[in-house]
Parts: sequence; structure tokens; C-alpha cells
Amino acid sequence: MGEGTRRRLPHHERRAQLIEIGRRHVEQASFDAISTDEIAADAGISRGLLFHYFPTRDDFLRALAEDASEELLQVTDPPSDLAPVARLRAGLAAYIDFVAERPAMFLSLIRGAAGGNAEMQEIFERTRGALAGRILEGLGVAARDPAVRHMARGYIALVEEVTVSWLRDGASDPQRDELIEALEAAAVVLLQLAGVAVDELLVE
Amino acid sequence: MGEGTRRRLPHHERRAQLIEIGRRHVEQASFDAISTDEIAADAGISRGLLFHYFPTRDDFLRALAEDASEELLQVTDPPSDLAPVARLRAGLAAYIDFVAERPAMFLSLIRGAAGGNAEMQEIFERTRGALAGRILEGLGVAARDPAVRHMARGYIALVEEVTVSWLRDGASDPQRDELIEALEAAAVVLLQLAGVAVDELLVE
Repeated sequence: MGEGTRRRLPHHERRAQLIEIGRRHVEQASFDAISTDEIAADAGISRGLLFHYFPTRDDFLRALAEDASEELLQVTDPPSDLAPVARLRAGLAAYIDFVAERPAMFLSLIRGAAGGNAEMQEIFERTRGALAGRILEGLGVAARDPAVRHMARGYIALVEEVTVSWLRDGASDPQRDELIEALEAAAVVLLQLAGVAVDELLVE
Repeated sequence: MGEGTRRRLPHHERRAQLIEIGRRHVEQASFDAISTDEIAADAGISRGLLFHYFPTRDDFLRALAEDASEELLQVTDPPSDLAPVARLRAGLAAYIDFVAERPAMFLSLIRGAAGGNAEMQEIFERTRGALAGRILEGLGVAARDPAVRHMARGYIALVEEVTVSWLRDGASDPQRDELIEALEAAAVVLLQLAGVAVDELLVE
């Protein structure tokens, strides 16, 4: 029995509580390992009541993935008063710190959960698309050109994979700041390769 | 009923036949959509006999993923007598053509199947690692430096995602050769960013 205390909670509060508990479970293990029995026990409610809020386990996992995606997008949204390249750097730093704090969740979101089913995959695609779009917007690059759009998505995949590989390796070599610097430079050179003019990017 | 003809086949032939049928199904749809009933029907055998070769549906999917991974690694292995950058280019061209011919299989392998379960994920990780290792080896770059290893894996993720994005968009803009050129140049600049000396890469 966890912090649930069997109080009656308004619908939205109970829902938020269940997501919060689920999120702690995901941060410690992964989406796949989520047990709705344990979540219900931690909330001090019956499994049946949990299913009143989330009719299936998949519905619950999807709500958790949506929550994780929203938080990732929020924390990696740099202040809009920064210059373009400084925004990119701030966004990368926030991304890497977010991921480093909850590697299990991140890994299961981009690997495990992404393949779970079409709806999970859609959340993952949407998040990746939002990050790619934000990078282009932040750098003042139009996303009309297909080559630029493809490259921006590829860049997000690169950042994900480099971050995963770095975390698995102990997150110490290279140092965090060196990693951010390399990833920042990678954005600029990759967009140049996709045909974006250099000047557009380097104006600070 | 398909081409099965209910002949008795030696064990390894029947196994190969089932994988071949499964593979055609995956190429037309995805791993998720595989029905072992349909596979057995196409092979002209009972579902029970199929489970004699592959005790569970997951075992069958894993065999299909192993098969797809091996084929991808084989067709993208460029002739070793080419100069380093020419090898990279040939490997990229083979990769893109392989994927363009069977986008459903590729998409479900890198997205869907990768998240299916730990074993599918391991096949996916191993394939990505093999591709990254081959790029470094082909370019004569030592993989000892962690920054280089992380970046090589990130580069493979980038190639995957750019290819997926390009295919979804109709595979026409940019043209195939332009795409290959940009991805080839991306390998060089990204490895440079990870600290690899330029000269090592550009010697043809």
C-alpha cells in the first residue's frame, strides 16, 4: 500500500495522481514493466477503479507517453529571447539533462514504447516532428524544402542515439559540455549539407 | 492455400520456406500484421506444424527479423577493393535501395519490431552497431574513442531517419543521388566533429 490513503478524489485529480505514480514507475524501470496492479496498489485504489480511468493497460501507457512527451517538449523549449544558436545550445543542454535524469523512461519511450503499437508510435513520431520543427524555427530556417525537413528529422534521431550511446557508456566521455558542443555544431553542418545558407544560421 | 503443395520437406527446407513466406508478408505489410495462420496456410501446412518449427509467434517474428538484418548487412557490404569514401557511398546507395524496395519491412523493423520485446530490440541494436562499426572500419577510423563511437551510432540513426522521412515523402525530393551525396558528406563532417582528423577520411 502506498501513499494512496483511499480518499475520494475528484476525477481529474485521481487521473493526475495515477499518471504521476505511473511516471515514477516508468522512470525506475520502463514502459514495458508497468504493472497496473502495482499502480493501483500504490494509489490505494482497486484495479477496477484504475480501469475506470484507463480502460486498458495500453490506454494507461499511452497517457504516460503523452505526459512524458509533453514534459520533454516543455523543458527543452528554450527562452525565446536568446539568439538562434544560443537557443539551440540551451535546448540541447535541457534535452540531455532531462534524459540523463530518467534514462530508463527515455530509452523505453524511444525504443520500447515506440514499437508497442500504432498509437504509441504516433506519439513518438509527433514528438520527434515537434523537436525537428522547433530546431528549424529557432534557427529561422524555412521547413518548406523537403531536404531540410528530412535532415532536421535525421538530426533529432542522431541526437537521440548519441545521447543513448553516451548514457549507456557512463555519461562521462566526452564531458556533457563537449557533447553539447559537438551536437550544436552537428545541427549547423547538417543543415548546411541540406542546402541551408550558412549566414542564416550563424547570426547570433 | 498457397504454393505449399503439402509435400514433406526436410526440416531446414521447411524452415527456410516459412521464413521466405513470412518475409513476403512482412514486405507487404509489417511485422505486427503477421498472422501465423496465414503463413501456415500459404505453406500448405497446419498451424501446429508451423509451431513445431517456431514454438511461438514471437520466435517466428524474431527469425524474420534476424533474416532481414542479415540481408541488410549483406547487401550493404560494399566491395573491399574500393577506396574508403567510395565504399561509404556504395554502402549508402545499397542501403537506400534496399529500404526503398521494401519500406514496410524496414519501417516495421526499425520502429515496430524494435520495441516489440527485448530480443527484437537486441537484433535491432546489433544491426545498428554492425553498420556503425563497418562505417568506421571502412573509413579506417579507430572506434576506441567513445566520442567517435557515439557519433557513428548517431550517424546510422540519422541515415535511418532521413531515409524514412524521404520515403514517406515520395522518395523523389531530393533525388536519390543527391540524398546519397548529402549522407556521404554528413558522415565525414560528423566524424570530424567527433575529433577524427580530416586527412584520415579524405584519402581516396
